[in-house]
Amino acid sequence: MTESSPSSGQLRYDTVTLLSDMGTVDGFVGVVHSVIRQMAPGVGVVDLSHGVAPFDVRGGSLTLARSVQYLCPGVIVGLVDPGAGGPQRPIALEVAGGAAVLIGPDNGLLAPAVGMIGGAERAVVLDDPTYHLPTSATTFAGRDVFAPVAAHLCNGIALTDLGTEVDPATLMPGLVPLTSVEHDGDGVPVLSAEVLWVDHFGNAQLNVDPDEIDGWGDRLHVRVGSTVRTAARVRAFAELGTGEIGVLVDADGLVALVADRHAAADELGITTGDAVTLTPLGDEGTPVGTRTAVTIGRRSDDDKESPT
Amino acid sequence: MTESSPSSGQLRYDTVTLLSDMGTVDGFVGVVHSVIRQMAPGVGVVDLSHGVAPFDVRGGSLTLARSVQYLCPGVIVGLVDPGAGGPQRPIALEVAGGAAVLIGPDNGLLAPAVGMIGGAERAVVLDDPTYHLPTSATTFAGRDVFAPVAAHLCNGIALTDLGTEVDPATLMPGLVPLTSVEHDGDGVPVLSAEVLWVDHFGNAQLNVDPDEIDGWGDRLHVRVGSTVRTAARVRAFAELGTGEIGVLVDADGLVALVADRHAAADELGITTGDAVTLTPLGDEGTPVGTRTAVTIGRRSDDDKESPT
Amino acid sequence: MTESSPSSGQLRYDTVTLLSDMGTVDGFVGVVHSVIRQMAPGVGVVDLSHGVAPFDVRGGSLTLARSVQYLCPGVIVGLVDPGAGGPQRPIALEVAGGAAVLIGPDNGLLAPAVGMIGGAERAVVLDDPTYHLPTSATTFAGRDVFAPVAAHLCNGIALTDLGTEVDPATLMPGLVPLTSVEHDGDGVPVLSAEVLWVDHFGNAQLNVDPDEIDGWGDRLHVRVGSTVRTAARVRAFAELGTGEIGVLVDADGLVALVADRHAAADELGITTGDAVTLTPLGDEGTPVGTRTAVTIGRRSDDDKESPT
Repeated sequence: MTESSPSSGQLRYDTVTLLSDMGTVDGFVGVVHSVIRQMAPGVGVVDLSHGVAPFDVRGGSLTLARSVQYLCPGVIVGLVDPGAGGPQRPIALEVAGGAAVLIGPDNGLLAPAVGMIGGAERAVVLDDPTYHLPTSATTFAGRDVFAPVAAHLCNGIALTDLGTEVDPATLMPGLVPLTSVEHDGDGVPVLSAEVLWVDHFGNAQLNVDPDEIDGWGDRLHVRVGSTVRTAARVRAFAELGTGEIGVLVDADGLVALVADRHAAADELGITTGDAVTLTPLGDEGTPVGTRTAVTIGRRSDDDKESPT
Repeated sequence: MTESSPSSGQLRYDTVTLLSDMGTVDGFVGVVHSVIRQMAPGVGVVDLSHGVAPFDVRGGSLTLARSVQYLCPGVIVGLVDPGAGGPQRPIALEVAGGAAVLIGPDNGLLAPAVGMIGGAERAVVLDDPTYHLPTSATTFAGRDVFAPVAAHLCNGIALTDLGTEVDPATLMPGLVPLTSVEHDGDGVPVLSAEVLWVDHFGNAQLNVDPDEIDGWGDRLHVRVGSTVRTAARVRAFAELGTGEIGVLVDADGLVALVADRHAAADELGITTGDAVTLTPLGDEGTPVGTRTAVTIGRRSDDDKESPT
Repeated sequence: MTESSPSSGQLRYDTVTLLSDMGTVDGFVGVVHSVIRQMAPGVGVVDLSHGVAPFDVRGGSLTLARSVQYLCPGVIVGLVDPGAGGPQRPIALEVAGGAAVLIGPDNGLLAPAVGMIGGAERAVVLDDPTYHLPTSATTFAGRDVFAPVAAHLCNGIALTDLGTEVDPATLMPGLVPLTSVEHDGDGVPVLSAEVLWVDHFGNAQLNVDPDEIDGWGDRLHVRVGSTVRTAARVRAFAELGTGEIGVLVDADGLVALVADRHAAADELGITTGDAVTLTPLGDEGTPVGTRTAVTIGRRSDDDKESPT
């Protein structure tokens, strides 16, 4: 069993939060917990999620960015690392005046979260093996690099002792898709968006800030591929009838496509990364009562609807 | 990051137990843990389950009721809330002389568990936003209402400070299906039951108390649809041969249909909510050695068996 | 709620680590946590995994053996018990001079892990019901036997107070498959191996120690059924091109078949328990540039390749 550092004294940080694509079946997560617990007794470990899809750096980065403002001060570890064992560098980023340090691979995973909380003030490449577990293994950095580094940070080892300081600007940025707006022949705005995330309940979060659809009225057209649906702006799922699609400002403050007790993503046939177009319908448009329920994949030309 | 209340003093409760349908993929659970940990440092958070099927209030209520007598005193949070964001009220129920407070939506989720431990002594609608997170979000009550309320309860805020006291009798009851008994032409009892729950191993728990089949002998007939199987009463899975179905008093003290190292629910083709009929076979009935193994879905008239 | 033993004093062990096939949906794991927390306040519970396949004693034993050297000193509970309720005995095994006690069914589950850390120094059959929960239930030993025993051990109850001491040599051994080596007509070694484990990323760990393929050069032939693939020895996934298979010494120090950002097990059509044959290709063999990419299941005789 791993030697335990008797850190009986004061902890600098008392929480380590973990995000990964390791799943919870193989025992990887339990081993990471065990290493941290032995090296930094008294530190609590919070699992944000280990259900990021394998190798999905973007998905993991968005989960972290959505959550980061609610996480405990301390060390935040991101482990989605398709390049494990390769030349990619493990890094540590200090944020919020030292209230938190994010550690993970330099592949963009941490960047959106760091951006959400003000950017990195200092960055270090974790290249001093003194603070890693002694091993010849190359493929389980969670256990061998990030768990011990997290423990050492909690125990008060200085960030700059852990490796070589680098300019945060030289690190891999995160990629968050931007929306774009065009106008159709009638001057009606057409907002091209993307599905950032489909949650456990089938709600589809878009990369759209509510400001971008401000003043668009109570109803919108949502286009997916060649199919168009009318969606009502709501504040609660229960405002929607069976089969209806709603547009809701979700708990992250972004625009989401939702349904009531039903997966909107299934109803619309969309998944993460898909393109979606939003257009205002306006109060003078098709009355709510006549919103057509076009079934994806079984439509004839008669069903075709065009935005306003 | 959420502001942390420096509750350095005595905690009223030191454990929060969570049950939800949020899954563990999206980070929802980690955020709820993080909010509680920041607002009530020193409180332990136990995850009972986050695998309740989305929107399945009844399934969640049964998981909670099965487990509640084993849970730690403290705050117990139930989060299965298809009406999130709607008019449904968040409530807190004090039980067992204040040993525990159950909080969740007023949709029947908490009722069976509360009934198991003696009923609610006091009830409060959680309508004072002072004790919630400041947000305009409407759809993540776990983070914005229940996590902070749980933390405040642990920190010693009085139940009645959290909102408006109401009569527990006015709250939504839970719905637990009852069995019924009829007698056939020969006066043999026919017990109509329902599958409450199929567990991870395929055991099918029925809404049947062992008293209801007391004195029925070593073997029963189990009818599912038009198929009848003979089942042996056992105390251990290993008493059953390959392909045999057993009737066992399970760890919750209810009657379950089981198999050995095999999913009884698959063998019988049943799932949660299905109707099952039990009839005593009696010791004078078909000897155990001749129990017919009728395969569900592939039976001819020759296979047909009728209860005694 | 379970009565709590006010163990305000010194703990003998402060960590309980859990491994099981219970899954995390039904609430079983939460109940086990709750029982331990009430009976031994202050003890931390680490979940190694609850995702062992139902009834898979071998899979569980390998997960435990892989991880055990990283686990916290204390009590380690293994719960994969197809014979629950049957005559199989619950046991406790003291290891490493009392640094840890492993408890679980006497079915071989604990044996490989115990072997990894020096063998059991003392063994006790947990047959004194004084230290179990009072219940007539027979099928939830995790809750009724192992959780309370783990708590009592943490609280300092002596191992030999928990039941009858037995000779560790009388307990069920674990079964770990051995490799075998033959030589073909040209004297080239042919190593017959088995897939021990396919991890969450699709890496296939073999029961092969790196010493067994020492000196075999940079490339190997991997035979699965009648299909042969050339695999390159690598230290990092990123050294592999698309569609290539690599041979890597994994984080457990065993030989694994891997791919880059892709499931090697899918590419090779293999799963846990499958037979795999390794043969050295030698540096004088087929140059790396010509390694043939034989697609499993769609090959003609023209594709056939024989080892050197």
